[in-house]
Formats: sequence, C-alpha cells, structure tokens
Amino acid sequence: MTGRLPLLTRRGDTLRYDREKGIVAILNRRLYPAETVWVDCADLEAVARAIETMVIQGGPPLAYAAGYGLALALDHASDYSLAEQQAVLDQALERLRRTRPTADDLHTILAEAERLALQALNQNKAPNDVVYAYVADEIQRGDRSAERCGVRAAELLTDGDTILTVCYPGAAFNWMLYTAVVKQGKQVAVMPTETRPYGQGIRLTASQALEIGSQVTVINDNMSGFCLSRDMISVYITAADRIALDGSIANKVGTYTNAVLAKRHGVPFYVLGYDGPDINTPTGAEIPIEERNGDEVLMMNGQRIAPAGVRGYYPAFDVTPPELISSIVTDRGIYRPAMIERYLDDSSDAPLDVIPLLG
Amino acid sequence: MTGRLPLLTRRGDTLRYDREKGIVAILNRRLYPAETVWVDCADLEAVARAIETMVIQGGPPLAYAAGYGLALALDHASDYSLAEQQAVLDQALERLRRTRPTADDLHTILAEAERLALQALNQNKAPNDVVYAYVADEIQRGDRSAERCGVRAAELLTDGDTILTVCYPGAAFNWMLYTAVVKQGKQVAVMPTETRPYGQGIRLTASQALEIGSQVTVINDNMSGFCLSRDMISVYITAADRIALDGSIANKVGTYTNAVLAKRHGVPFYVLGYDGPDINTPTGAEIPIEERNGDEVLMMNGQRIAPAGVRGYYPAFDVTPPELISSIVTDRGIYRPAMIERYLDDSSDAPLDVIPLLG
Repeated sequence: MTGRLPLLTRRGDTLRYDREKGIVAILNRRLYPAETVWVDCADLEAVARAIETMVIQGGPPLAYAAGYGLALALDHASDYSLAEQQAVLDQALERLRRTRPTADDLHTILAEAERLALQALNQNKAPNDVVYAYVADEIQRGDRSAERCGVRAAELLTDGDTILTVCYPGAAFNWMLYTAVVKQGKQVAVMPTETRPYGQGIRLTASQALEIGSQVTVINDNMSGFCLSRDMISVYITAADRIALDGSIANKVGTYTNAVLAKRHGVPFYVLGYDGPDINTPTGAEIPIEERNGDEVLMMNGQRIAPAGVRGYYPAFDVTPPELISSIVTDRGIYRPAMIERYLDDSSDAPLDVIPLLG
Repeated sequence: MTGRLPLLTRRGDTLRYDREKGIVAILNRRLYPAETVWVDCADLEAVARAIETMVIQGGPPLAYAAGYGLALALDHASDYSLAEQQAVLDQALERLRRTRPTADDLHTILAEAERLALQALNQNKAPNDVVYAYVADEIQRGDRSAERCGVRAAELLTDGDTILTVCYPGAAFNWMLYTAVVKQGKQVAVMPTETRPYGQGIRLTASQALEIGSQVTVINDNMSGFCLSRDMISVYITAADRIALDGSIANKVGTYTNAVLAKRHGVPFYVLGYDGPDINTPTGAEIPIEERNGDEVLMMNGQRIAPAGVRGYYPAFDVTPPELISSIVTDRGIYRPAMIERYLDDSSDAPLDVIPLLG
C-alpha cells in the first residue's frame, strides 16, 4: 500500500463556509471514519453546538470553525445598523468563547477577529468580509504551520519506532508520519490509545495512520503503562491544546499519566507544538481545564452503561509539567520545554537544530 | 438510604451447581447490573467458555466455577471405568487450566481437586462427590477469607476518604466498604475507573458501592492521573489476581499505571490480598500475563469501533512492584509487601497491628 495524506490533514477539506448558501459545513468527527457525514450549520448557535459536542475537535480546527461562525453571524447582520452589528459581534463572541475554554487557538483567533471587526466597523467597512478573509487566511497559515511542525518532527523518528499517542494529534501528526513513512521510507508503527469517551484515538488517529501506511495497534486507555513497561513503545508523541511559557502543556486527559509512565521507562515524550506557546499563559497552573458533563463518561456509543444513581466526572484535559517533556516541536524549531519562550523571538526560518534536543 | 451487602458479596449467590438438573448456573457479570441473567452450563465446555468470555470474573469466583465444572464433568463420567474416569479428569483439567492463566486461585483449586479426585479413584470412592464437596467448602472458606480481609481493610479507611479503584475488587471490597460505611458510619466515596473493554468498574464496582451507600463517581480509565494530581483521591485500593512472594502483585491492566501515579502524588495504595501470596510464584516476573484476543479492545457494547485494518492488543493484567504498594491486607493481617512471605507462617489469628503499616 502506498501511503497518502489522509482527509484530516488540510483543514479546509473538513470545514467550509459556503457564503452563498449561508452554511458552515463541518465534517462530523464524532462519526468519522465509520461515516463521512457533514453537519450543515445555518447559524451561529449551530456552529457553537457543533464545537461543544465535539463534532469538530482539535485546537486549531475548532478555532477556525468558531471564526467562520462569527463571520456567519456578521453576514446575517450585514444590513443592520452600526450599533446593531456591534451588539451581534459582542453576543457572538460571548457565545463562542463559552464553547471550549482550554485550547488557546479559539481565544487567540476570536480576539484578533474582534479587533479586525471593530476596526472595520469604525472605518465603515463590512466586518463580515474582514472576518471571513481573516479566518480563511488563518486556515492557510495554520496548514503551513502544521506541515512545518510535522516535517520537523519526522526527523525525530527512527526506522522501527512504535509511537504511543493519545487522542488525535491533528494535521502535524499526519505530516510527521507521512514524511517519515512515505517520503523517508521509515517503518513507523502507531499505537493509539482509544481515548474514551469519544474514541478519537481508535477512530481518527487509527484511520489517519492506516491511510499513511503505518501498522496500527489500538489499546484501551488503561494499557499504555503495561506496554511501556514491556518495551513495546519507543516514543510518545501528542499534540498540545495549549503550551504555557514555562513549557507546561495541556492536552487531552490521559496525556499526563502516559508522560509519567514514559519518563519512568525511559521513553522520550515529544510534543507537536504547532505555532508555539500562548503568550498570555505564564505557567501550566493558569491553563483552565474544561470539565464537561459527567454523563458523557457514563455512555458508550450513545447508550448509558452505568447504573442509575452513579455520577460521572469528565475533566477533558490535563496538564503535563515541563520536566516530563523531552522536546516541543514547532513550526520554528525544536525546543526543550524550559526554553519554549525563545519561540517568540525566533524567526520561522530557524534551522532544525538550533536548540539541542535533549539535556 | 441504609446500605446493605450487595449481591456479589457471597459467591454462592452468583454461582450454583444444581446436581439434580446437571447444571452449573453462573450470574452473567458481562451484563450485570443492567440485566440479571444466569448462564446455565450443562457441560464442562460451557463452563470453560463462561470463564474465558468473562461471564464470571475475579480470581476466586472463576476458580470456584472451574471447580464446579470439573465436578460436572466427573458427574457425567460416574458410570465409566476407572481408566475412563481418569481420562475425563485429565482432559477436564487440561481444558480448565487453559481458560485463564494469571490468577493463582484457579490453578491452586484445580491442583487440590486433582489430588483429591486421584485419591478417591485409588480408594474406589466417587471422585465427583469428593470434588463437589471440596469446591463447596472452598467457597465457604473463601467467603470467610474475603470477609476477614475486608473487615481489616475497613480500619485503613477514614471518614471523608475517596477511594480510587480499578476493575471490581470482589467480595473483600464489599465487606470493607460495608464495614466502614454501614457499621462504622464513615463517609467513604468511591471513584471507580470504567475498566475497558468490559466495564467492570462502571458496572460491577459502581453498583456494589452504590448499594452499600457510598457516593459513586465514575471516571474513564484515562482520568485517574488528573484526579490524583488534583487531590480528589485520598486512597487507592485494588484486589490482586496473584501476589508473588516478593510482594509484587498482578491485577487488572491499569492497576500499575495508577500505582505509579498514586506514589507520585502521595496517595497510599492498599491491596486487598484475600488469602495471601502464591507459594509457587517467587517474583512478579514469574506471573504469566494473559493476552486476550485483540479484537476485544476494538469493540464497544459488541460493536466494532476501529476502522478495518486496525489491530487491537489486549493484555488483561499488569504487574505492580512492591515499592509502589503501601500495604497488602489479607485475612491474616496487614503486611508491607516486602514482608508478605510472613503470611505463610502467621496464624489466622494474628492481630491487625502485627506488622507496621507504613515504612
């Protein structure tokens, strides 16, 4: 099988804003790859709910969906007065910011979209067009960032590696694996953890890695410690929903546990850091951890498993401190976590080896 | 709600051998508590399959089922010649020993049943009656052992505790919780991990703890590290499918990972050790780890989740080394893991405080 770049690699292939039809169309990642179904969102509320229910997931993709949702709300208000448009903008931002608190991309993109929209309103320009163009550009920029990050990360992979990962680490993971397996001819196997309750690992990561041409062996979330202890895993790689300036990362819950076990068993932990740390988050302690509805934990495939009277608790993310991370791979270079703040000063042309890999 | 001793506390309530009907009846633990369904096993093969497919689970219960399965096979052969009965015995033992390798109870009980059956055959006595009586006695003895172990363990619980646990730790867990909550009036909450793929935590542990009167909050298997890091758990307690003489334990996969995290966050790990170590297992390295069919990992509720082409890997147990265990609670006393070999010399009347709790 000749590997190929799978569907989730380029964000525009799974998220589109058709302005003529007035619809933000989102590939339903709760069903993919068993079913390839698109959710057509005709208003802001539908986009917000798609984000909340994880129809779209991953820091950058859900941020782009929110951006298009804002453009959609402003499109609907294009005939309104200036004051009315400003009210629509405020309400839309408030609604979208409430959807998912942990990943920084959503909040960064909404802040910039707000600034551009206000500027447009002040200049008597159409804020909807400005926001739409900004988001479309961001998707292009994010795709390039993911590709650069993934291609750099491929350098860290060796022929014969088996990668442990959690959730679906996004487009950079696809680029990393594609570069290593297809371009560089390395045999790299992937061991995704299932990632309960929604199974991003068993569905999304598994399908992407399979299409690229890797051997894929899925384990349940309670099995990674055993596999690490038996030397079945040579490298642990995840994405990060937010990187703090101290080199802490927040990622899908379970990431921290595996990082502790990887360290114990001498397995390096590389973080796909995409476009780097969040300038507004000094340390991991400042990252807000989303607590979702506990009932989600009690369900399998839409059916409640737990007996009546039992509660569920669903923290969606956890924080891994820098001492458990070997390196953070970004579009600008590879950093020790304690040095991640340097990203902000580095040019995007920094060579791969600008920062030593391991201390 | 006044708590009560739940159904799974006494093994005879969920496993019966009706010799008149020729049926070993087993409560289906793959469905309980959503459905209370009994599986009627009319021959040895049906019993063996019930054990293999986890219709019955837990070291002692599945061992008792195997013992009754052996008696059933010998009952069917009671008119046979001596040589034929011996052949039935050998084949039945071979079949039953193949069902589950990790827990020691199965192998201990089958070895003693074999010895008794051979002795009976040599003395021209009925081996089926001897094996049946032995297994029925073992269930009584096992119930008393579980009660003693659980009552001792209750002393380790403090008002306000929240217990993290994995899988369903069996009858001693029920006795521990019942003693602490109902008899001693302590408020003790339970946080079971779901325990994929079959959900023993979300179904069995959750239902038992709820009936006893605890507050139960279920988490998925990837969330315990986060909860430990946020001080939501004050004590970690599991059973053990086998205890080695060096104080290592094998238990449901995931136990080891949580033990590493509990140690990191200063949470004690107590093992419900029932009737102590296996004299034939010097160290944890000698415990055989059952690898089940990888497809089981890929299913949720009988439906395959993973895309075609993906494999699963299902190690059913893991081994936790003694340095991660605070104490092993047995029917004879509470031991530091490094001192567990003393169990073999201690009388069953050893006072609770014979071995200091923490080093």
